[in-house]
Amino acid sequence: SPQSAARTEPGGHSLAVAAVLPAGGCGERMGVPTPKQFCPILERPLISYTLQALERVCWIKDIVVAVTGENMEVMKSIIQKYQHKRISLVEAGVTRHRSIFSGLKALAEDQLNSKLSKPEVVIIHDAVRPFVEEDVLLKVVTAAKEHGCTDYDLEFGTECLQLALKYCRTKAKLVEGSPDLWKVTYKRDLYAAESIIKEIISQEICVVMDSKEDNKHVGHLLEEVLKSELNHVKVTSEALCLAGRHLQQIILDQCYNFVCVNVMTSDFQETQKLLSMLEESNLSILYPVVVVSVHFLDFKLVPPSQKMENLMQIKEFSKKVKERNILLYGLLISYPQVGKMFIF
Amino acid sequence: SPQSAARTEPGGHSLAVAAVLPAGGCGERMGVPTPKQFCPILERPLISYTLQALERVCWIKDIVVAVTGENMEVMKSIIQKYQHKRISLVEAGVTRHRSIFSGLKALAEDQLNSKLSKPEVVIIHDAVRPFVEEDVLLKVVTAAKEHGCTDYDLEFGTECLQLALKYCRTKAKLVEGSPDLWKVTYKRDLYAAESIIKEIISQEICVVMDSKEDNKHVGHLLEEVLKSELNHVKVTSEALCLAGRHLQQIILDQCYNFVCVNVMTSDFQETQKLLSMLEESNLSILYPVVVVSVHFLDFKLVPPSQKMENLMQIKEFSKKVKERNILLYGLLISYPQVGKMFIF
Ligand SMILES: [Mg+2]
Ligand SMILES: [Mg+2]
Repeated sequence: SPQSAARTEPGGHSLAVAAVLPAGGCGERMGVPTPKQFCPILERPLISYTLQALERVCWIKDIVVAVTGENMEVMKSIIQKYQHKRISLVEAGVTRHRSIFSGLKALAEDQLNSKLSKPEVVIIHDAVRPFVEEDVLLKVVTAAKEHGCTDYDLEFGTECLQLALKYCRTKAKLVEGSPDLWKVTYKRDLYAAESIIKEIISQEICVVMDSKEDNKHVGHLLEEVLKSELNHVKVTSEALCLAGRHLQQIILDQCYNFVCVNVMTSDFQETQKLLSMLEESNLSILYPVVVVSVHFLDFKLVPPSQKMENLMQIKEFSKKVKERNILLYGLLISYPQVGKMFIF
Repeated sequence: SPQSAARTEPGGHSLAVAAVLPAGGCGERMGVPTPKQFCPILERPLISYTLQALERVCWIKDIVVAVTGENMEVMKSIIQKYQHKRISLVEAGVTRHRSIFSGLKALAEDQLNSKLSKPEVVIIHDAVRPFVEEDVLLKVVTAAKEHGCTDYDLEFGTECLQLALKYCRTKAKLVEGSPDLWKVTYKRDLYAAESIIKEIISQEICVVMDSKEDNKHVGHLLEEVLKSELNHVKVTSEALCLAGRHLQQIILDQCYNFVCVNVMTSDFQETQKLLSMLEESNLSILYPVVVVSVHFLDFKLVPPSQKMENLMQIKEFSKKVKERNILLYGLLISYPQVGKMFIF
């Protein structure tokens, strides 16, 4: 799951590890005025994804981000909005070299007012590589700890290695990364990153039903249809029951897609209950949550004007929850007694 | 526009230019079983986009594609389905070298039954680089013609240069490409390519109205709303008039998105007319065409069941035109007399 906390510690014991992220670039290759680390992907800045990737690795104690003075306030608001933890900010230098230096200096200094602890190993990680996995970080740290920095690395590796040795007296080593560790450089890379993130948050759909016991509930039917139509997607169904722990657990396990099927009631209250649970969970802080509220109606029996009034409410709620990064859609299904159903 | 034919000839006069596409790769880095050149983007194989990019350059007389024996039939069906022209197929070798060699040999041979003319300049182009522009091809050909292949290029350029000289007695030179010329290598590159193509075909929306004279037509209102909501998108409106040349011209100019607004009639006939025009135009051979058929209804006045029956037809038509790569959606709008409108 995209946010799950890492439990493995490097070497099986506690090692002081920190990370430095140079994020002073201005993104001139992207062809857009915004520096690439601040370009939005699903409305969240790229650097927030990178911070999230490092943050979930619990054995990285401190994350130091080097940003330019003019982007300092933007960076602070990103940290606040997306609730990032263990982040310290330093001012970036005019080059990537100098930015890394500033980050290392902040970690090396034994200032009284510093909350940072001096690390044994420092990971230097680009702010524009959001898809870093724990295993490669573990490999980096283990290699650094066991072998230290060799002459070969210093000669043929990147600039970071020499800086780490010089200013932090910390050994560094070059470790091969996976293709997933790629850098967002061009506009097409933003497109690719967006698609990868959409893939990550589209792995599960939960069909929420307003009835607990009914085995013939249309939600079960929908679950079966979705299962057969959507390969590679985990489809579950769950009764909307505030007392029950199941739905809470599904939200906690980071399912980002919900279809709320209303057959027992004709109003919007059940969907509202789900929305409240989602809002309380803070699930939507990092990724958008999609909720489709499905309502049934036999147009031959019920005057639709009344039903329409209820559905109008969805627009209002939709506007309200959009601010919380929850995307609410309403769906009216004509459900004549012959049992055929059509969706438009 | 994505398909427009190139009119500039290299050097201002007729020069015999051909292209060779090595497409024998097996795409092991993609992490998918399909060779990357055959991976679908909007349901069309990647190599078809590359062929399209070369094909629209009218001064490239022949395009020789080297594919492995097992993919020969797949390649033939792609050429037929997407109506590619000036393509010849040769069997790929076990290496990229050998594939290029096969392509060059086919061009160099003076066989009686060969429809290929011996070129002065040969462009070697990867099958997995779909976004090649005419200007870079022109640069390549001009450089090849004017300077020929230098010793430096032969030493430090790619393998293709030496092969071209050795087997085709054709001079080659290394020319710097733009970042757009990038190679589809990983799965994320397929995502990026898809987004780029979607961007290309989303540059224009045409609102089609069922009334010619009415200035208060809701289509005009929709046009204004779309114009203010969608930046970077060209929004036009046009009356659905078979005799008129305007809509035909818009289709010819490759607009891929249509909203058909029906206020005069309550049936589906106007949308059907538009669909017929689109089918006849062959516009949807290379890219999907989206048509949204909008219908109005005051639920307080009209019994919706009857209207629903009409809308059910959309599902049938939708299924039918989907086979022609036209994506048809129906939209029912409650339009009460107070003048407020809502969409769900
Ligand atoms: Mg940077
Ligand atoms: Mg290849």
